[in-house]
Formats: sequence, structure tokens, C-alpha cells
Amino acid sequence: MALTFFVEGLSCRVDERCIFFVTGNARKEVEVNAILREANIAPFRVVHVDIDLPELQGPLGDRGALDIARAKCLEASERVGAAVLVEDTSLSFPALGGLPGPYIKWFIDAIGNDGLWRLLETSDDRSAFCQCTLCYSSGPGAEPLLFVGRTDGAIVPPHASSGGGGFGWDAIFVPDGHEVPFAALSLKEKNAISHRARALEKFVAHCKRPLGLSEPPGRAEDA
Amino acid sequence: MALTFFVEGLSCRVDERCIFFVTGNARKEVEVNAILREANIAPFRVVHVDIDLPELQGPLGDRGALDIARAKCLEASERVGAAVLVEDTSLSFPALGGLPGPYIKWFIDAIGNDGLWRLLETSDDRSAFCQCTLCYSSGPGAEPLLFVGRTDGAIVPPHASSGGGGFGWDAIFVPDGHEVPFAALSLKEKNAISHRARALEKFVAHCKRPLGLSEPPGRAEDA
Repeated sequence: MALTFFVEGLSCRVDERCIFFVTGNARKEVEVNAILREANIAPFRVVHVDIDLPELQGPLGDRGALDIARAKCLEASERVGAAVLVEDTSLSFPALGGLPGPYIKWFIDAIGNDGLWRLLETSDDRSAFCQCTLCYSSGPGAEPLLFVGRTDGAIVPPHASSGGGGFGWDAIFVPDGHEVPFAALSLKEKNAISHRARALEKFVAHCKRPLGLSEPPGRAEDA
Repeated sequence: MALTFFVEGLSCRVDERCIFFVTGNARKEVEVNAILREANIAPFRVVHVDIDLPELQGPLGDRGALDIARAKCLEASERVGAAVLVEDTSLSFPALGGLPGPYIKWFIDAIGNDGLWRLLETSDDRSAFCQCTLCYSSGPGAEPLLFVGRTDGAIVPPHASSGGGGFGWDAIFVPDGHEVPFAALSLKEKNAISHRARALEKFVAHCKRPLGLSEPPGRAEDA
């Protein structure tokens, strides 16, 4: 544990173990930190590192999501040279055979929430599910561990009353059992049911196991 | 030139220079070979290598397409250890902000030609354009050269009279100035106007320049 990390201008104190959460999305950082603060997984400290990692293409569905997250995690641990956490989110429409899936980022860029809604507007099936694949590596060369969280729901038209919260497609995704989209929920409410929170919950459970992170990784959870 | 290449069981004769065309799609190989045979770019011989290369994600539009092809080319030249040619194809719908773009492969897998048509069925704008980004590297470590070919057209419903030729989305893409989709054209007709043929034409012109391929690469064409 007597290590000091210097990564992109950040450093960890000598007496604590850092996990670098690598993402280019500051909004995801806020969510992850809120959840991990509550989870109290000390002596581990999660530090945000703002690197836009290259992402592979992959098939729709679970296999693709896991492969994409794993490749991103391996790259992140090489670049940062320490324990890292990365995440990949997909949003899948069964009516479109699983699209946008891991390509949701490019759909948002190209057609926005309004366009996403129009893709399903004439369909009988407006169901959707979002999935967060969280990937942890204890350091360069270590086989990543995968933690998957999923939330089912439906796509609704973007409208003013959806609230200004959230980001990405939060304004058009209504989680099952709720009347309003993610964007209209408080961060605390969203974190009680979100795909990202559910994946983090599994990661936290892993951290809190008797042997914790000192146990050699190598097995994918939920893979 | 006194080299012999042994790649994936293939070899070139000692007195000729090989370019390895790396693709997992045998139908693309047929098209490329038909065009290059006509172009007579000897002493270069193009040999097909069937490797499914990892592909990066990238933004829609030209920048993304060039980045994706370049990364794939660098990877191919490292793996093959010789001069390589790779290609990446995108199909863009202006009505959908450029989608599917470089993700057309996953769209075809998920929703097929019928689903692609339905994405535009209710839109006033059914225009589309396909783009082939051809990337050549003279060997590992050499900066790739990029050659882009584009064909404009429109998306039509898949129907029985479209002919059984072509592959992928050929049955629903009618190139401008034609009445029938790519799939209903002969290979010769398609190769006279296709995005792939237009990119190859630029590559062939490059090969036939006075200094030919012995000139050090390093500049992107059409970038």
C-alpha cells in the first residue's frame, strides 16, 4: 500500500489505495461518487480521471457490451498504470433488434432525444432497457472484472415536464414502476434504481468481500 | 523487391510486390479484385487475407470514418507485417443526422434492410449516401494513406424485383441517375459508379503515379 500515484496531475495519499475512475463524462462522475460515498468502501478512494478512451465496435447484446467494456478497461489500466474503473452504457430498444445498444452516444449526437423518440413513435413496442457495464482492473495486465446493472423501462416523448435533471437520454426513459423519466427524479431517487447504481452495487459488494480487492481478479461477474 | 511474404498461409512470388487486402467479407474481395484486375496495377498483386479486425467507434461524418479506417489499417499492417489495404464502408441518412454511418453493419444485423427502410418510411427525406474509405499502408509503422469514394442515392423499400445480386444494403440503395438498386445491377455496372470503385480509382491513380508506391507515404488523400 506504500504507493503514491501521479496520474494526469492527480495523486493519492500514501496510506490509501486509489481506484481511478476513467471517464470523459463529468455527469457520470457525479453519480458514481454519490453512490460510492454512501457505500463507504474505504480504504479505497475513487479519483476521477478525465481521459476519452478509444472504444471498440462490437455486436449488439451482452457479448458486445462486455467485450467493449473489457477492451476499454485494459486500455485504461495501461494508460493510468494503476487500478481503474471504467463504465460503458447501452440503451436497447427491442423493437429495433437491440439498437441503439452500445452506439447510444452517437444516436444522441446525431438525432437527440427527439429523434430517438421518433424511431419508436409508430411502433407498438416502446419498451427499452439500459445497461451499465462496469469494469474493474487492479492494474496493468490484470484481467478485468465485469459488473452489469440493468434497468427496464419505456421510451416516452421528450416534454417540458420531464425536469431538467439527468443527462443524455434521461429525459425520455421512464423506468418500470415510475411515472416520470430519469430526468425528473432526484439524483438519490435515480441512484436507487438506475442501471449504473445496480452495477456499482455489485462492485461494492465485491470490494466488501472478506478478501476484498487483495483477492486476485480473473473471473467475470454476470458474464 | 526481393522479398517473400508468408501470411496466413499465403505467399507472394519473389519478383512481385504484394498488397494484402484485409477483410472478413468475401463479397468485398470479389468487387475489389474485379476492379483491380481491370486497372492493371502490376507489378503489384493484391492478395486477400481473411482477418476480422477490431474496429474503433468514432463520430458520424468524415472525421470518424477516416479515424476508424486509419486505426484498422495500422492494426492490419502490424498483424500482417506487410503492405496492406483495408476498407470501411458507411451508409448515411441525412434525415437521421448521418446514422447509421459507420455502424451500418450493426444496423443490418439488428433490423435488416426492411428495418432500415422503415426508419425512413415516414420521412420526407429518403436520400442516402454511401462512402468507402480505403486505407493503404506500405508496412508496419508507415503512416496510412486514405482514399475516399462516395455515391449518392436514395433508400427504397426492399422488393422482389431488386435482383439477387449485391450484399448488405445493396437491395435498398438506388444510386442517383438509376432506377434500380445496386443489387439489380451487374457487378460491372455497379463497379462503374459504386463508392468502393470510386475509392479504388483514387488508389489506382496513386499507384500509377511516376514514383508509385516507392514514394514515402504520409499524406492523406481526400482527408
